[in-house]
Amino acid sequence: MKKGIGYSVPGFTASAVSAGLKKDGLLDLCLIFSQRQAVVAGMFTTNKVKAAPVLLSQARIKRGFARAVLANSGCANACTGEQGLRDAMQTTNMLSHRLDIAPDEILVASTGVIGAHLPVYRFERAVPALVRELSPVGFESVAQALMTTDSFPKVSYFEGTAGGAPFHLLGIAKGAGMIMPDMATMLSILVSDISIDYQTLWQLFRSVTDSTFNRITVDGETSTNDMVLIMANGAAGNSRLDATGIGEFEKGLTSVMGELSYLIAKDGEGASKVMIIELMGAATDNDAYVAARTVSNSYLVKTAVFGQDPNWGRIMAALGRSGIMMEEQKVQISINGVTIVEGGLLTSPGKEKEAAEQMKNEEITIRIHLNQGNSSDRMVTCDLTYDYIKINAEYRT
Amino acid sequence: MKKGIGYSVPGFTASAVSAGLKKDGLLDLCLIFSQRQAVVAGMFTTNKVKAAPVLLSQARIKRGFARAVLANSGCANACTGEQGLRDAMQTTNMLSHRLDIAPDEILVASTGVIGAHLPVYRFERAVPALVRELSPVGFESVAQALMTTDSFPKVSYFEGTAGGAPFHLLGIAKGAGMIMPDMATMLSILVSDISIDYQTLWQLFRSVTDSTFNRITVDGETSTNDMVLIMANGAAGNSRLDATGIGEFEKGLTSVMGELSYLIAKDGEGASKVMIIELMGAATDNDAYVAARTVSNSYLVKTAVFGQDPNWGRIMAALGRSGIMMEEQKVQISINGVTIVEGGLLTSPGKEKEAAEQMKNEEITIRIHLNQGNSSDRMVTCDLTYDYIKINAEYRT
Repeated sequence: MKKGIGYSVPGFTASAVSAGLKKDGLLDLCLIFSQRQAVVAGMFTTNKVKAAPVLLSQARIKRGFARAVLANSGCANACTGEQGLRDAMQTTNMLSHRLDIAPDEILVASTGVIGAHLPVYRFERAVPALVRELSPVGFESVAQALMTTDSFPKVSYFEGTAGGAPFHLLGIAKGAGMIMPDMATMLSILVSDISIDYQTLWQLFRSVTDSTFNRITVDGETSTNDMVLIMANGAAGNSRLDATGIGEFEKGLTSVMGELSYLIAKDGEGASKVMIIELMGAATDNDAYVAARTVSNSYLVKTAVFGQDPNWGRIMAALGRSGIMMEEQKVQISINGVTIVEGGLLTSPGKEKEAAEQMKNEEITIRIHLNQGNSSDRMVTCDLTYDYIKINAEYRT
Repeated sequence: MKKGIGYSVPGFTASAVSAGLKKDGLLDLCLIFSQRQAVVAGMFTTNKVKAAPVLLSQARIKRGFARAVLANSGCANACTGEQGLRDAMQTTNMLSHRLDIAPDEILVASTGVIGAHLPVYRFERAVPALVRELSPVGFESVAQALMTTDSFPKVSYFEGTAGGAPFHLLGIAKGAGMIMPDMATMLSILVSDISIDYQTLWQLFRSVTDSTFNRITVDGETSTNDMVLIMANGAAGNSRLDATGIGEFEKGLTSVMGELSYLIAKDGEGASKVMIIELMGAATDNDAYVAARTVSNSYLVKTAVFGQDPNWGRIMAALGRSGIMMEEQKVQISINGVTIVEGGLLTSPGKEKEAAEQMKNEEITIRIHLNQGNSSDRMVTCDLTYDYIKINAEYRT
């Protein structure tokens, strides 16, 4: 994994401008462009209220190929009805002329306030500059343009070798609030120069999304706009990957999507700590997932973590209400390696003190063993703080 | 309904003392005693992690009769294993001698910190005074002794006529946090002098619990100690009620349990506003319940209410992720009577302004019509504020 300024991926350019969708002249409109046809895959929100850009991209991605992604922050274009769809289409029409590609080769993504209509005239004004600014090193500014309540831009990068050639993989994400992706996540866009079979890409992408973006939560809220897209344009010149040769690319995808989803939890609205729930010994895979998710979303566990209190009773109470198969007297809990609960009971006041020391860290791993079976799961989340309330009580004011 | 100081119910006495379970000499141990055998019914937490007092009372209530309830705050006696059960039994043994009744005629309830053992010696020291202080007008002090993070004591009272005689019904509750009762609630104890058939009481009590205590939530957390009990001692001398003559008593029960559960939501930890979700037009009863509960527990809806922002997009998003049958374009939402959403879209900016004015009230009723069918439900909850975080980040420190 390589870090630093000026990431690029052969055959892709990117740009961002301020179109006036956010205040104070911040970057809010961005474009990723592939110089050649790219194979695409995407995962979308499972929320039944889907934003216009979700509906449009979901329809267009079925072609299997795309050339560009146009994304904005500041306006979600959600709950905007048919006009929302027309607006989204119109923005791609404008762009298609400038890029000399078909409108349906352009995917769209939006994030921001729900219920407001897209100010299409601002897109119209901004599109010429957006195309003019396209650059191989424009991805950092794209990450900035996607930010809403995010406190830092989120980029992850990977280089590897597959099918006899070096390849590059770059991912960008935005997160912060309304985060409990379910089949998808907040906005994230990945680009790679890998040459890969369409079916293989989809299968791999779905599976890695499930273990990364679908295993984070900030507040248990699944947004109307969640979307994660990947474009692979084959510029690496490797022999086309199919199901048999994906090893190194899978490693890259897991690394990049894992890092981006971790960064989203770390930058959860108001978060002061990352909390990792490792759930082991569940009777079924579903029990493992439900238990991990219930503890991850518990107001009381999250405020205890903020308060640096190893309040294991709240973890027990959350497990007990999650509806899974469990026996209180079999539960084991450790906090950053300190075993605080054995057989459902406090191990010792000394261990509780040790655990309290561990709670001062910025990353808290709570490992829960149910001793009911062999299924396990893992979720990444954050604590619940005053700043979450502040951000969300004052979001539109 | 009669209000005021000095409620009493014929044949019942009550008392409360400070046993040193809470700090600063606050009342923390209380007793309700029936001078004659009383028919009892109770609903208990569905959390799989059940506190010792829940397990003990659940076992003893099966007899159908009881004479007393011993309740404490400051220590939940939850996650305390077999010692917890022995401790709970021992406290009733001590008391049974003083009251000259059998230990299994005493029910117990506890609330407070999870995972700490009951300081039995403090009970031993306090029991003589507890019995000495028993008084017909001791119920207000019982309500005080049950408080943990509650900001006011919760009492509700009803007088009516049934079976040819006047009867009295008094209810006490404590709430505040870890509130999403599911078949039961936080601690609540009701007493009546009504003469009523055991089966009739259970049936009625279960049904009224379901529409009152099981329809409130503060934070989506179902506690390990939830319990609501009723004792009816027949001192009213009415002809014994059975399923046919319960009209006025049902009215009383609905009034008292409805008021107590409303007060619990109003006094939710850190709450500044009561929020009532009226969900109409769902395809099934379960959809109505799930949708109302999802909106009621949404971090984002609750922070918007705290911020006095009629952020209907967050309501739409919560409905959309709830998993119910819904079509965005059929949804109607009103806030305190102001229709802000029709056909899934904002009605007008003027209506949004009107709704914003309504958000300044202390009680916010959000009525949602899904237009999918004829099922409806209703939940009472509160907003999510800085003080919830403060209370729960600092609870044990």
